Amino acid sequence: MTSVPSVSYSITVRLEVPAGGTAVSSLTATVESAGGLVTALDVTGSGHERIQVDVTCAATSSAHAEELVEALRLVPGVVIGKVSDRTFLVHLGGKIEVKSKVPIRNRDDLSLVYTPGVARVCQAIAKNPEDARRLTIKRNTVAVVTDGSAVLGLGNIGATAALPVMEGKAALFKRFADIDAFPICLDTQDTDEIIRTVQNIAPVFAGINLEDISAPRCFEIEARLRQILDIPVFHDDQHGTAIVVLAALINALKVVGKSLGSIRVAMSGAGAAGHAIAQLLYAAGVRDLVATDIHGVIHPSRADLTGVPTWYLEHSNPRGVVGTLGDAVAGADVFIGVSAPNILTAADVETMASDAIVFALANPEPEIQPQEASRFAAVVATGRSDYPNQINNVLAFPGVFRGLLDAHSRSVTTEMLTAAARALAETVSDEELNAAYIVPSVFHPGIADTVATAVRGSVENIRKTAAETGEFPAVRV
Amino acid sequence: MTSVPSVSYSITVRLEVPAGGTAVSSLTATVESAGGLVTALDVTGSGHERIQVDVTCAATSSAHAEELVEALRLVPGVVIGKVSDRTFLVHLGGKIEVKSKVPIRNRDDLSLVYTPGVARVCQAIAKNPEDARRLTIKRNTVAVVTDGSAVLGLGNIGATAALPVMEGKAALFKRFADIDAFPICLDTQDTDEIIRTVQNIAPVFAGINLEDISAPRCFEIEARLRQILDIPVFHDDQHGTAIVVLAALINALKVVGKSLGSIRVAMSGAGAAGHAIAQLLYAAGVRDLVATDIHGVIHPSRADLTGVPTWYLEHSNPRGVVGTLGDAVAGADVFIGVSAPNILTAADVETMASDAIVFALANPEPEIQPQEASRFAAVVATGRSDYPNQINNVLAFPGVFRGLLDAHSRSVTTEMLTAAARALAETVSDEELNAAYIVPSVFHPGIADTVATAVRGSVENIRKTAAETGEFPAVRV
Repeated sequence: MTSVPSVSYSITVRLEVPAGGTAVSSLTATVESAGGLVTALDVTGSGHERIQVDVTCAATSSAHAEELVEALRLVPGVVIGKVSDRTFLVHLGGKIEVKSKVPIRNRDDLSLVYTPGVARVCQAIAKNPEDARRLTIKRNTVAVVTDGSAVLGLGNIGATAALPVMEGKAALFKRFADIDAFPICLDTQDTDEIIRTVQNIAPVFAGINLEDISAPRCFEIEARLRQILDIPVFHDDQHGTAIVVLAALINALKVVGKSLGSIRVAMSGAGAAGHAIAQLLYAAGVRDLVATDIHGVIHPSRADLTGVPTWYLEHSNPRGVVGTLGDAVAGADVFIGVSAPNILTAADVETMASDAIVFALANPEPEIQPQEASRFAAVVATGRSDYPNQINNVLAFPGVFRGLLDAHSRSVTTEMLTAAARALAETVSDEELNAAYIVPSVFHPGIADTVATAVRGSVENIRKTAAETGEFPAVRV
Repeated sequence: MTSVPSVSYSITVRLEVPAGGTAVSSLTATVESAGGLVTALDVTGSGHERIQVDVTCAATSSAHAEELVEALRLVPGVVIGKVSDRTFLVHLGGKIEVKSKVPIRNRDDLSLVYTPGVARVCQAIAKNPEDARRLTIKRNTVAVVTDGSAVLGLGNIGATAALPVMEGKAALFKRFADIDAFPICLDTQDTDEIIRTVQNIAPVFAGINLEDISAPRCFEIEARLRQILDIPVFHDDQHGTAIVVLAALINALKVVGKSLGSIRVAMSGAGAAGHAIAQLLYAAGVRDLVATDIHGVIHPSRADLTGVPTWYLEHSNPRGVVGTLGDAVAGADVFIGVSAPNILTAADVETMASDAIVFALANPEPEIQPQEASRFAAVVATGRSDYPNQINNVLAFPGVFRGLLDAHSRSVTTEMLTAAARALAETVSDEELNAAYIVPSVFHPGIADTVATAVRGSVENIRKTAAETGEFPAVRV
């Protein structure tokens, strides 16, 4: 699966070749015969005898990138110079910056934005704290909080090593929803400490995006922060994924002509993402969902249920299935995997109902290779960007937070997540919809706006209902 | 002292006047006869009968601004429209933003700045944590941390109301030293909680700027954070002020031809700023400093010394002065006040040594009005921007942090602060130096660079000495 050269393993090799002869023209062929892909070739210097060339090429891995350099070194007449890694180059000095929105050109500016003028603004907020959403950055600012315990597929690499991901997330928040997000990487993995710290820094923020915190601690951290704070708390690994899965499933079901209320769903993985997906599918109307973890189907008779959320015992497996993943998958309309590579076989898919849907979302190696799944499934999706139907959180979180912030929401509810998923599904028109296009590209214009409008509408509905009934909305995810 | 119209009480009044007649021409005179100052008059709309005018004028207070509007309302034919407060306008939506430094135009960009490319950068940092200073925002990022307990002269207004000041500080960091600073406003005023929280969020930052935290908690918070963290911790209210005071004093002494080692200094105020100023003056060579607080001269015989740093008993008052502020000031070459308004009289200044220097830094009302002090003092400075010789922290903190970050310093020492003060003093050339110009304007170009170079040199000297002696530099402020 890693045999396709990728821009994320892209290097630029500066080299010198003789000005005459065939050396230059053989560079591209050399890279390609070594399995790489030349994406740019710039002559950056030229003399009578020799010319300097920057060759940018995509490799399949770091080791492969080194092999490409060695292949180029063997071209007669070539002298290898500096080798740059494009991914590292783009990270030099970090990916985000804090800028002033106000000019500070002279003493007058200074007395408006700082002392003495700022004192009146402080006093106004002290008198009416809600004014912070008008007169400070609070309204548009989100904390991207991690403890570095479950970063991408890399595991527990710690707070500092997690920072590039959190910076990237902040850059995506800005790019897709014009939100000011700032990374908070915590030098603790203690649940109580994390909760206290986030509570302590909350005044600056209008929302908390939890990120890459391992299960089961992430459940308690999110739940307790939601109780304590008066701003929405959203664990993207859970709910961002769940929204995009629900949206993709809604569209996949349109393709095969089935409905949420009538399908059987088999799931592999009951961690952070799996739990949130199962809950959101239930809220959207799915009633027959059989979940499995590494020990098999989750069923009350199992002795090893420690750590498995009790939610599953109350809301899943209505037919009392026992056994392995294979038992759960047999006859299922939908398979959703958020677990481990290569645990599902084509033979398993063959046992599913006709027009089966397979979402194999383990990353970077899915539960089943999409080519294999396609032999027996009608619709296949993965978490990878090099296959159709990528389930990518970027489709959800920017719009969700844009909507929450614009509505000055104090919480996130299941209704809001469901509204986001339905709106996301609808960004794929009936004309566009097909088995290879159940979710839009993340660069499809207007996605975040559409999701934001739906979330904002949901917040306002809930507020209206609460005002009419006099009740505070109780349903929380 | 608040009788001068200030831009920090500046309003823009939109009004309509008849197109003919004298109404327009009388607007400026009306504002001025009411004690205001018209800084702009724009015709923003015009018709046959009436024209629309935006009058921007500076007032002396919020109440005075309302008086100006009422005065304009009485002009025959004038209809008052919207009245905008310029200070509030500039704060709408906050003063800083987080921007992406990298383009995210397509899937290739996404796979470089986010998954899957970012994973390799995370792994590199996990392997070698120092790489965070190269591959993340850490190297250029400072936390501006407050608990809102002592904000400007406003007192304990809390975390949220303090945010406009912290945003302003972040904007100044960017404007004067190209540093990315982010506000951390803490929803706790418990010393241990503050320390734990700052420790927990430290991985993202290369420096901590403590701000507006009340004494004596600020001493313990700073001291313990310096012990725990491997990045410099700097309480600007203490050390920023101390650096500018020392720089100003060095230059004032040049004007009157005296030296640090031979002068007598009387101080009023032994809080955060006072304590830091006294310590830095001692480190710079001042040996005869008599400090006073609200109960009089600090002397070991006093019964009410609870809360007074013991430092004073060991390093100040060598002549054993007892009594009141008046007793401390009599015969002193220098008075430095960081205390309360109007506690020093011209008669007190008259008792000082010849060529007396008076720094009356209480804000917004100084210990003695500068006009009064000037009757008997050779050099007078205040914290105000509407008199010569403004002692303004903006002269120090941007350059200090620029130097610390560039040197990858893990601490702040007295040597670094002294180096910063000496460099700042030298930005005023011998040709420029006079009794009304002992510190440069904050907009004087190159100040932060000069201070940064000195601090960086100091860090490198200390490192070199430590490497030669094998000792870790022990001296900390």
